[in-house]
Amino acid sequence: MSSPKNQFSETNLNAIFWARSVAVVGASATPSKLGHIITKNILEGGYAGNVYPINPSSDSILGLTAYPDLEDIPGDVDLVIFCIPGPLVPGLLGKAAAKNARGAIIISGGFREVGNSQLEQELIQSAQEHHIRLIGPNCQGVNFTPNKLCASWPLFTKNGSLAVISQSGTVAATLAGWAEEEGIGISGVISLGNQSDLCETDFLEVFGQDEQTQVIAMYVEGVKNGPRFMDVVRKIDKPIIVLKSGRTPGGEKAAASHTKSLAGRDDVFSGICQQLGILRATTIEELYDFAKGFTSLPLPGGNRLMIITSSGGSGILAVDVAEEGRLQIPSLNTGLATTLRGSSIPASTVIGNPLDLTGNAASEDYLETLQIAEQADFADMYLMIFGDPIPGSAEKLANVFEKSKKPIGICYLGGGQTQAEELSQFHQRRIPVYPTPERAARVLAAIHDKKNLLSYRQEVYS
Amino acid sequence: MSSPKNQFSETNLNAIFWARSVAVVGASATPSKLGHIITKNILEGGYAGNVYPINPSSDSILGLTAYPDLEDIPGDVDLVIFCIPGPLVPGLLGKAAAKNARGAIIISGGFREVGNSQLEQELIQSAQEHHIRLIGPNCQGVNFTPNKLCASWPLFTKNGSLAVISQSGTVAATLAGWAEEEGIGISGVISLGNQSDLCETDFLEVFGQDEQTQVIAMYVEGVKNGPRFMDVVRKIDKPIIVLKSGRTPGGEKAAASHTKSLAGRDDVFSGICQQLGILRATTIEELYDFAKGFTSLPLPGGNRLMIITSSGGSGILAVDVAEEGRLQIPSLNTGLATTLRGSSIPASTVIGNPLDLTGNAASEDYLETLQIAEQADFADMYLMIFGDPIPGSAEKLANVFEKSKKPIGICYLGGGQTQAEELSQFHQRRIPVYPTPERAARVLAAIHDKKNLLSYRQEVYS
Repeated sequence: MSSPKNQFSETNLNAIFWARSVAVVGASATPSKLGHIITKNILEGGYAGNVYPINPSSDSILGLTAYPDLEDIPGDVDLVIFCIPGPLVPGLLGKAAAKNARGAIIISGGFREVGNSQLEQELIQSAQEHHIRLIGPNCQGVNFTPNKLCASWPLFTKNGSLAVISQSGTVAATLAGWAEEEGIGISGVISLGNQSDLCETDFLEVFGQDEQTQVIAMYVEGVKNGPRFMDVVRKIDKPIIVLKSGRTPGGEKAAASHTKSLAGRDDVFSGICQQLGILRATTIEELYDFAKGFTSLPLPGGNRLMIITSSGGSGILAVDVAEEGRLQIPSLNTGLATTLRGSSIPASTVIGNPLDLTGNAASEDYLETLQIAEQADFADMYLMIFGDPIPGSAEKLANVFEKSKKPIGICYLGGGQTQAEELSQFHQRRIPVYPTPERAARVLAAIHDKKNLLSYRQEVYS
Repeated sequence: MSSPKNQFSETNLNAIFWARSVAVVGASATPSKLGHIITKNILEGGYAGNVYPINPSSDSILGLTAYPDLEDIPGDVDLVIFCIPGPLVPGLLGKAAAKNARGAIIISGGFREVGNSQLEQELIQSAQEHHIRLIGPNCQGVNFTPNKLCASWPLFTKNGSLAVISQSGTVAATLAGWAEEEGIGISGVISLGNQSDLCETDFLEVFGQDEQTQVIAMYVEGVKNGPRFMDVVRKIDKPIIVLKSGRTPGGEKAAASHTKSLAGRDDVFSGICQQLGILRATTIEELYDFAKGFTSLPLPGGNRLMIITSSGGSGILAVDVAEEGRLQIPSLNTGLATTLRGSSIPASTVIGNPLDLTGNAASEDYLETLQIAEQADFADMYLMIFGDPIPGSAEKLANVFEKSKKPIGICYLGGGQTQAEELSQFHQRRIPVYPTPERAARVLAAIHDKKNLLSYRQEVYS
């Protein structure tokens, strides 16, 4: 465990994120129970602080000494995680405070989400009285990889620069799962739950200041306090991508029911996003695709895109999406076309933009094309579509991808077993790869759209 | 091998699809060569007819006797596959005809696609002279699972009811790969190439008549003969889903360059699709999603959708997409709500539509909710979102899914290792599962849209 840093100045949530010790109230030896799963994930995630399982009917859980009650813990506890029935929680915050806990994650449900607003009020009052900040209730917990603290499920351990803040535990787990699988990794994942105390904006502030986080992806159904949300966003020097549900009347109604609060008119939210340079995604996959792109692609200086492909059809599909996203697909000039024709790329290559290396493409041909185009400063960004079983792509491309000051979008499809092997190589190198030309092109268009970025926010608001 | 059926009456392409023997000209012992890969895939795909590798410098290839020339083959050959340089092909069609071949697949490139229209003309003339029908040139071959004939790559063997016709070999391989992976399988895959003889409409006709094919998915950049395309479509009693690239000016230009023919104005094509009840997809993934849905979901009688979920947020995302697709999300009436509240589903369930079983959901709860709603004839279709690690879902749902006269869309996400295991179970049972609520909801909306279906085509044109 790194020593705690006092980095989260305004919200002072160090006690939660950099907790030096955690207690799990409701820890269990029964594998199907959340109190078991969370304790296990904290241990298997490599958390280096003290872990105290609390359970009156066990002496030992997962190899750790279990304690009957919070007050039996030897020494202090920074963070308490509750996995017991909701009605029992408010009465225990005093005991947590007596152990100097300053944060609590309430996994437990049974509050406002099932109509029991009174219990939620009791919880809030108790927390305020005992100076404990709350995440939840009715949430899926917190995973903060810089502190190797996976107080959540499923277990994800891959360290990365992507932070996820979500009103849906499932959406959070889905994004983190994809990021784990593809080697992108996460800096943190927050499942907001009912947000009876800490809300989406508090965590925006946290990840805005967190050193490891470079990109923030959010799923929300509304924001708790519009003006404060806007204030906080304006100060954040990182791309923020938001998926907000409740676009249609029925969706708005369902969102209001889920969060038991006014979801907020969708068109108003859209306006705010445009004003603040927040990139709005329309689906879970798009939220992930955009976030993944921003974690590792530099910003382009202009909107000229060159597409290098082994699949003519895939190249055209990419052109459609790129043009719809206001990118330009310039034609080759005679000089560049001649140089390419004289190079060692396959004789069957269709010289143009898209440049179609055809089914004879080898990984070196992508590199050679890129280098020749770069010498002519032909484009501001590149899309490489590997549309066949082309071995060696990851190895050949890694170096140029990492050094490139221009974004290089990569798509791999139709490549059978070779593709599976190449993807694994790309993922090991944390190079983002997209499964279709359309998804890759949409990301490049988003990356180009400077409105989404802080540079724009700073220009306007600083 | 089944005995050939004279099922393709109008185009009489039995010689290709139900070939009793095939020769591979350019078969090779070198694993990286296409002539090797195709011969290997034919063998490993389980093809039961005779396979004759043709190569003047080998006696034996992949354990088969190799012949120096087509004329050296003992007996007749129905289908010849060419994997040699393009300029050599036209001169060999006479030898193929001498062996009574009636079909040829020309994998070879070097024709119109690289500007050599003269060579393509020679090929066409030679084929006409020798009464040989051509697929290609410059294509990725044919995979027809009813005859276990994978004269293509990668190797896909899973038998299914989905036929793919594609102007892009990569798009075809991508769709077939997903179908293989998810247990959906294929009836056939055609990579059209330059379409110097047989074109997209010929294969539409083939799969329109093929007994095993229930759904036809196409990727095209244009159609060769509009009126004939329309005539053939009108006679086909199966859902047809088309992805056409070239929507934007740049895309249209790239498409024209790829196919070396006028791609056709996109808005005209859109109009034709609407008129003929062809469902138009906008991305490769959507093409696959729609096709997958139509292979196994019955048509709904109305547009009322009930969403049963363990993830509140996912339910709302589904509502947005469903409403955008003109589905109705009816509210529960008091009677149904009371019955559900009195059932054995979790007490934490948020009774409504979406019905949110919350993180406490077990697979039985989905079934019980469905049965209660069905007794009240509450909906015309269902969307089940498994948004947590919920074991036993595939096993519990399989029976009701198969017997249901209403479509049941299934989505699984955020479920970690349990999800991987459940997906494998669903795939074994050929039950379509979607990775996000948005994609599942979009499929249900498409399935509902009767304009896409033959019932509509028949009404209008019969």
